Amino acid sequence: MGNTFGNFLRLTTFGESHGSAVGGILDGLPSGVQVSEQAVQAQLDRRRPGQSDLSTPRKEADRISIHSGIENGLSLGTPLGFTVANENRRPKDYAGFRAAPRPSHADFTYRMRYGAAASSGGGRASARETISRVAGGAIAEQLLGQRHGTEIVAWVSSVSDIDASAQDFAAVTRAQVDGSIVRCPDEAAAGKMITAIEQARDAGDSLGGIITCVCRNIPAGWGDPVFDKVEAGLARAMLSIPATKGFDFGSGFAGTRMRGSQHNDPFTCRDGRLVPATNNSGGIQGGITNGAPIYFRVAFKPVATIRLPQQTVDYDGNPVTIEGHGRHDPCVLPRAVAIVESMAALVLADAALAAEVK
Amino acid sequence: MGNTFGNFLRLTTFGESHGSAVGGILDGLPSGVQVSEQAVQAQLDRRRPGQSDLSTPRKEADRISIHSGIENGLSLGTPLGFTVANENRRPKDYAGFRAAPRPSHADFTYRMRYGAAASSGGGRASARETISRVAGGAIAEQLLGQRHGTEIVAWVSSVSDIDASAQDFAAVTRAQVDGSIVRCPDEAAAGKMITAIEQARDAGDSLGGIITCVCRNIPAGWGDPVFDKVEAGLARAMLSIPATKGFDFGSGFAGTRMRGSQHNDPFTCRDGRLVPATNNSGGIQGGITNGAPIYFRVAFKPVATIRLPQQTVDYDGNPVTIEGHGRHDPCVLPRAVAIVESMAALVLADAALAAEVK
Amino acid sequence: MGNTFGNFLRLTTFGESHGSAVGGILDGLPSGVQVSEQAVQAQLDRRRPGQSDLSTPRKEADRISIHSGIENGLSLGTPLGFTVANENRRPKDYAGFRAAPRPSHADFTYRMRYGAAASSGGGRASARETISRVAGGAIAEQLLGQRHGTEIVAWVSSVSDIDASAQDFAAVTRAQVDGSIVRCPDEAAAGKMITAIEQARDAGDSLGGIITCVCRNIPAGWGDPVFDKVEAGLARAMLSIPATKGFDFGSGFAGTRMRGSQHNDPFTCRDGRLVPATNNSGGIQGGITNGAPIYFRVAFKPVATIRLPQQTVDYDGNPVTIEGHGRHDPCVLPRAVAIVESMAALVLADAALAAEVK
Amino acid sequence: MGNTFGNFLRLTTFGESHGSAVGGILDGLPSGVQVSEQAVQAQLDRRRPGQSDLSTPRKEADRISIHSGIENGLSLGTPLGFTVANENRRPKDYAGFRAAPRPSHADFTYRMRYGAAASSGGGRASARETISRVAGGAIAEQLLGQRHGTEIVAWVSSVSDIDASAQDFAAVTRAQVDGSIVRCPDEAAAGKMITAIEQARDAGDSLGGIITCVCRNIPAGWGDPVFDKVEAGLARAMLSIPATKGFDFGSGFAGTRMRGSQHNDPFTCRDGRLVPATNNSGGIQGGITNGAPIYFRVAFKPVATIRLPQQTVDYDGNPVTIEGHGRHDPCVLPRAVAIVESMAALVLADAALAAEVK
Repeated sequence: MGNTFGNFLRLTTFGESHGSAVGGILDGLPSGVQVSEQAVQAQLDRRRPGQSDLSTPRKEADRISIHSGIENGLSLGTPLGFTVANENRRPKDYAGFRAAPRPSHADFTYRMRYGAAASSGGGRASARETISRVAGGAIAEQLLGQRHGTEIVAWVSSVSDIDASAQDFAAVTRAQVDGSIVRCPDEAAAGKMITAIEQARDAGDSLGGIITCVCRNIPAGWGDPVFDKVEAGLARAMLSIPATKGFDFGSGFAGTRMRGSQHNDPFTCRDGRLVPATNNSGGIQGGITNGAPIYFRVAFKPVATIRLPQQTVDYDGNPVTIEGHGRHDPCVLPRAVAIVESMAALVLADAALAAEVK
Repeated sequence: MGNTFGNFLRLTTFGESHGSAVGGILDGLPSGVQVSEQAVQAQLDRRRPGQSDLSTPRKEADRISIHSGIENGLSLGTPLGFTVANENRRPKDYAGFRAAPRPSHADFTYRMRYGAAASSGGGRASARETISRVAGGAIAEQLLGQRHGTEIVAWVSSVSDIDASAQDFAAVTRAQVDGSIVRCPDEAAAGKMITAIEQARDAGDSLGGIITCVCRNIPAGWGDPVFDKVEAGLARAMLSIPATKGFDFGSGFAGTRMRGSQHNDPFTCRDGRLVPATNNSGGIQGGITNGAPIYFRVAFKPVATIRLPQQTVDYDGNPVTIEGHGRHDPCVLPRAVAIVESMAALVLADAALAAEVK
Repeated sequence: MGNTFGNFLRLTTFGESHGSAVGGILDGLPSGVQVSEQAVQAQLDRRRPGQSDLSTPRKEADRISIHSGIENGLSLGTPLGFTVANENRRPKDYAGFRAAPRPSHADFTYRMRYGAAASSGGGRASARETISRVAGGAIAEQLLGQRHGTEIVAWVSSVSDIDASAQDFAAVTRAQVDGSIVRCPDEAAAGKMITAIEQARDAGDSLGGIITCVCRNIPAGWGDPVFDKVEAGLARAMLSIPATKGFDFGSGFAGTRMRGSQHNDPFTCRDGRLVPATNNSGGIQGGITNGAPIYFRVAFKPVATIRLPQQTVDYDGNPVTIEGHGRHDPCVLPRAVAIVESMAALVLADAALAAEVK
Repeated sequence: MGNTFGNFLRLTTFGESHGSAVGGILDGLPSGVQVSEQAVQAQLDRRRPGQSDLSTPRKEADRISIHSGIENGLSLGTPLGFTVANENRRPKDYAGFRAAPRPSHADFTYRMRYGAAASSGGGRASARETISRVAGGAIAEQLLGQRHGTEIVAWVSSVSDIDASAQDFAAVTRAQVDGSIVRCPDEAAAGKMITAIEQARDAGDSLGGIITCVCRNIPAGWGDPVFDKVEAGLARAMLSIPATKGFDFGSGFAGTRMRGSQHNDPFTCRDGRLVPATNNSGGIQGGITNGAPIYFRVAFKPVATIRLPQQTVDYDGNPVTIEGHGRHDPCVLPRAVAIVESMAALVLADAALAAEVK
């Protein structure tokens, strides 16, 4: 509960921005998995603040230390404990939030839930919490890749009202995604997105958008009905990421306007195996994978932290004007791509291990 | 895992359509809650097949028996075991599905997951599985109502491309929803939806749509970051319902096109308490309730079972034409309203109990 | 929590003696296991009241109905829901317990925990609760037997101060155990035990004792350190059985008096496999099975329900004399043999499934 | 599963002796608890190697760093992540164990479970794993102390065949326990125990014994039947500690020889509250605390690591003689006192929080 994710591969995380470190424990990783700390670091670097002009200038190296569970590059079957130091703490940045809760932030709700609040405002609502997700997810991804050839690729498919063109789910790569700092593989759209984010930043405002993710090379037969259907796990995983507002997979919300005769995916036979000829199902039927790629979308709201002045009230109910001056991102989506991939990897690795119990 | 939902209030369910009964165990209900079997039955009746011309003609009384955990109408703090008999079994209806998997059904994936398949095709993918959710949810709802005055109201807000007008989240009632057999409180839209569903039924086809749900009288301070955020719990709950394809809450996917300065919900003071002046947050900030109504949408695909012939292949890869002749609904949304409410009640009751640990 | 046992194979139970049924759900059983309802019934019959002069005269047929999860005698991979009717309810027997808590019963503590108490006194503290354990355990045993040839045999090794001679762990069978109504395979000791229990019964008193259990044909490599060591699971399982006071395995409490050089089990090579040459470890090292038989002891107190008058106080603190007149056993051990075996089966089947995740 | 303990207060741990650190995450601690790092360190120091002539000369400072979840000495309601560095690693000490498994060690079983084995032999079977238990337990103890005045005191009640006299459960203190380096409050017995341990050490052998623990100031009404009875939780907790072989509570194994009329604890009225007049129940009835002190015993085998030569076989089945030369304790009991107290604290704090859900 709370800070643990997964049933078979279980990630438990800790850490606020005011403490000395964030980190986690990944339990349930089988023995014999090759764990590359560099591969983990590479995903952390894609999530890291300060990596481009589009993100917060807060500087953090975000170097991971794995303390246990591996030896000579191989997992031992025992839990992997890891930490990432918080190097650039500025608790004073948050001093004002103790008097008045920031609109659409977690300041108010954390106070209602926990009484005594962390000086940094929302405590675990800090974006630094997601470091541990990326670390755990990057390890899960190595398990999936080595055993099943699974590939997980996410990208920014819209920013505000700028939509990228549809991508080829069978072909899109992380290299293509990383071709632009906004992590949109459609170059023309990427350019417009970057301009829009820069303008929002300069205006002291923020933008939202949508991340699309595809998971390829997923064997048929993963998933645990009725409450641990793969789509249910993905939905929970994505909606647990800060600033998310929605999730759909396969035909999604748009599919509600189709007729059954259009929407159904008939089977065909390829290389001696049954596969769906179309993929409105998004790779999942009855909560269990069918061998086709899984694809889904995640909605992110415009981040709550803005520089523009906001009229609100303090904890005593008195009107106040809040002006932001902390370090923040005008649009979190480029950095969130790695978080979406990581949470998808955790869900799928969990389902992969569950399917081994026969 | 699998067939258990919830951490504090835990519903475990069993049952396929071919067996003698479906049922479940609700564990974690505190003692002293008034449990009305009639109120549970009333929600089961809203989910029951055969209740109107829009649903499958399969006749089932779906009467609940609660075997334990209550005495003199009060809960004892011990688990409630309940069963609902399967009275109208027709295993022969399913005989054909053993040769060829139905498109977009769970026949294929259940076989890949479990090998030996139930004769009824998808086993737990049967809609009868949702009876136990409604029974458990109806009890959770009584807990929420008695302790917090919580009200949960869901309705059909679109069928295919017919959209109902926006409802007043503060006022919409179940009586209004039940005013039409399609369970849409917008009378004009309801009429069009009914016509569309009847036409689809007569054409041997099926329709999808969207259910909107509002939860009122939710105290601030429920929710367990970071992985048990309220929205994460709702997302998992909704995507675990058969035929669902998406979930969003508050401003949702549409909110991704807003700017932070528009989207943020400033606080105001009402009756001495801080409340958000607007509600793009959908009642949740940082994963914790803020006291405003929670509202969300759930996308349902057009059901996979249709009467129209479908070209597909059998398990040996040979082309076959499947024609449906089992009993099914041309549109599940009217019956799914009670399921959405029930799953929301389970999520919120779980969060309510979690918040008592202080 | 509470009423669920196991991580991979999960038994959730419900039921008090005053309700219409007891029962449970066994989730996580893989597909393709042959499930014999007769074999389940056979174990229930060994636990059933009224089976001999040594047990309570309360008559219950205790017939099991399995409602789901199996078809044509094979498990489907979906949860098995089952119920056993309470046919012989006599709530009036319990009327007096509402005024004064019975000494060493759960009446007082259930009231402290749950406030409103079931009319039957301790609610779930009823011995009928253990029916669901035996049903679930009997199914777990079939899984273990079919896959690993595992055999689990428990017997009464002492009653009061009458100790049975040591049994050959490699050879003792259930048939030998069931050779006497007291379920002790040492005939001479069995005779003395029966006499002692009859005398205690006639005196209105009760006796305790020890059950010893051996589990054979357990592969090396089961167990999940550090908190789900096999011995930890067995200890929890046994101490969750009503009236138990202690657990030890292998050399147990007696082994604390040995020196390391005597106690250590050196390895030897048999049929090309390493096996411990002695078995002070009781088949478990570092929480993981080593291939040798697991054996352990469980201490049962003399049951609290006696006919002799007892001086105590009522809930208002006034001195009262309680005289028992309900139906009860003078010594629960003969019936508890099946419960010990069942809980052992649940622990081992859970470890067996856990070990499949590799 | 595996490395997580507790339902409401959850400790997840990591770490082997060959890695850079051991540590854990304590999740579920409510906000506002005063957390003293010094008090945690004090318990770690009681577990620390090298603290007296009776323990291994391996030198470790075992200083704890808490990275999150507290601010200004108060808990925030968010998870506490902590680490303790491994300063004195000597992987070469373990080189030999790769060829032949040490008798009664976890070398063989870890290899059977996990295939690739850690170079240090049993991986998580290292005694350093227990550091994280003590850290988590010391925090749990602070919660219990502040809220309920709970006191938990364990001591060495026997070493080999030397038994300490019975202690006054209402009065025995940690100061008395720490009065001797063997942690036995009976001075005469302590002297004999020290001599026996020194002789075993000098002979290259090891000794076992029993630790007794009492928990005072436990309110009536804690515990979650049927599988999370307090005694079931304690039994699991104790049997998860390395080298333990048995557990009993209250009258325990000795109580099996009593008659019900002797064993039952009648109630009496003290200060207006019902309390048991005697305490054979050991503070628990029906799995729920009754307000009387909980007391229990834990059996520890003589540690497997000895210096005396042992005849065994290597992994290829060839006879070999193993001679110990690693650093180890001739008797773990003095250091295990803090581990027993810590695990008891985790079980009781979990039950305390569970009882808040009403």
